[in-house]
Amino acid sequence: MPTYKLLIQYDGGRYAGWQIQPGLPTIQGELLDRLRRICDDPGLSLAGAARTDSGTHALGQVGTFRSEREWEPRRLRYAINGLLPPDIAVASAEVAPEGFHARRSATGRTYQYRISCSAILSPFVARYAHHHRGPLDLAAMREGALVLTGEHDFSSFKASADVSATPVKTISRCEVVLDAEIVSITVEGSSFLQHMVRTIAGTLLEVGRGRWHPRKVGEILLARQRAAAGPTLPARGLFLMSVTYVSPSRGSLPAGENG
Amino acid sequence: MPTYKLLIQYDGGRYAGWQIQPGLPTIQGELLDRLRRICDDPGLSLAGAARTDSGTHALGQVGTFRSEREWEPRRLRYAINGLLPPDIAVASAEVAPEGFHARRSATGRTYQYRISCSAILSPFVARYAHHHRGPLDLAAMREGALVLTGEHDFSSFKASADVSATPVKTISRCEVVLDAEIVSITVEGSSFLQHMVRTIAGTLLEVGRGRWHPRKVGEILLARQRAAAGPTLPARGLFLMSVTYVSPSRGSLPAGENG
Repeated sequence: MPTYKLLIQYDGGRYAGWQIQPGLPTIQGELLDRLRRICDDPGLSLAGAARTDSGTHALGQVGTFRSEREWEPRRLRYAINGLLPPDIAVASAEVAPEGFHARRSATGRTYQYRISCSAILSPFVARYAHHHRGPLDLAAMREGALVLTGEHDFSSFKASADVSATPVKTISRCEVVLDAEIVSITVEGSSFLQHMVRTIAGTLLEVGRGRWHPRKVGEILLARQRAAAGPTLPARGLFLMSVTYVSPSRGSLPAGENG
Repeated sequence: MPTYKLLIQYDGGRYAGWQIQPGLPTIQGELLDRLRRICDDPGLSLAGAARTDSGTHALGQVGTFRSEREWEPRRLRYAINGLLPPDIAVASAEVAPEGFHARRSATGRTYQYRISCSAILSPFVARYAHHHRGPLDLAAMREGALVLTGEHDFSSFKASADVSATPVKTISRCEVVLDAEIVSITVEGSSFLQHMVRTIAGTLLEVGRGRWHPRKVGEILLARQRAAAGPTLPARGLFLMSVTYVSPSRGSLPAGENG
């Protein structure tokens, strides 16, 4: 039974997040409904690389499913896109190696949080960015971002509802870039706690607007208390940009199946 | 009593168009509600340069209103933007000359219709473009656009509900440009019939996909029957880009008041 890998994009504005929930519009729910129909398999299940929150967008979510049906990948892509609502799209489909799993095989995830600092927020940016009127101190934000890079206990940056096994996570990259009055905070790591990127963005925003010195970011990490960090910024500014997989030859398969 | 001129932008996706209608969300209705509140004048009225259809967007709509209240333009802009929903914004506000009127003083209007021709429609483009999968013959579309330029009877391109005094209109510019898999049709004229730009776009799309020869556009104009032209494309691809006014010294004021 072949495994299929989908690259999924969505405007999360009208969804209650990735994960399927009864009675609520969800990305997984919409995809699952279409996949079960085109594969004629009511038991089909779909794994996602990241459980994005309500309102969060994606340019590079990854999903996997298995189907008895043999699909030519391009036909699969056309079939599902023809049924999906316009705010969800499958950008590519491919046959994945046996045992490949969107979440378990993933080795890294990259998110981007966008803050518009223009005097007037354009209606065409408002759906996709948080608004902070006025200039931000990028150098200070970058200094704060550097403090977050590496392995740390991120308890101060997690939602109370978070159920992760450990609050210790590694951030391999945290970059702050200004382009066309939008400050983008790009964060890469193996995995994240719930609300972690939005709380990192809220903390770096406090640094950027001058309310906090960049060294305060280190104190927040040490506090290991949610109340120490900045606000969790709204989901509409958050994008899941990409998911990384090690190539099969280098061991993306679960260890037990890999030789 | 000073006259104020507003430059207005909106994502028209969730509105029943510019013009106020009881019980429906409209751009004029939202603006009027906020203006009446901040000016403390329940009788205040707001003129718009163009009555954009349900779902149509604007980058450069112009509105005018008169108020007893003296506003510093920047304060007016902040006050109204602070109350508006995020899909409507006032990009600038200024004091206009006595007698200036958003619609009556306008000498030109520029619209743009956007068609995405990418294999997969991005969810972030879907709100703001019509989708036609596959390449379009730009040279043929430009030839058709040239036929439409000038003064013509545009009866074949108007909605049955149109109430304009005359179907004779002048198009001073009709340009077809391809950028990043989006074909933009930019149409400039003094004024337009209802659905005229969307029907021009639908007609040029038939030419671009090779169903019609460009010279058919001339036959459509001569037919003076709506059935002769192409389909009216969806409003989500249409943007009101800008409104032109002649500078006061050259006579934008009503003739009687102009010396």
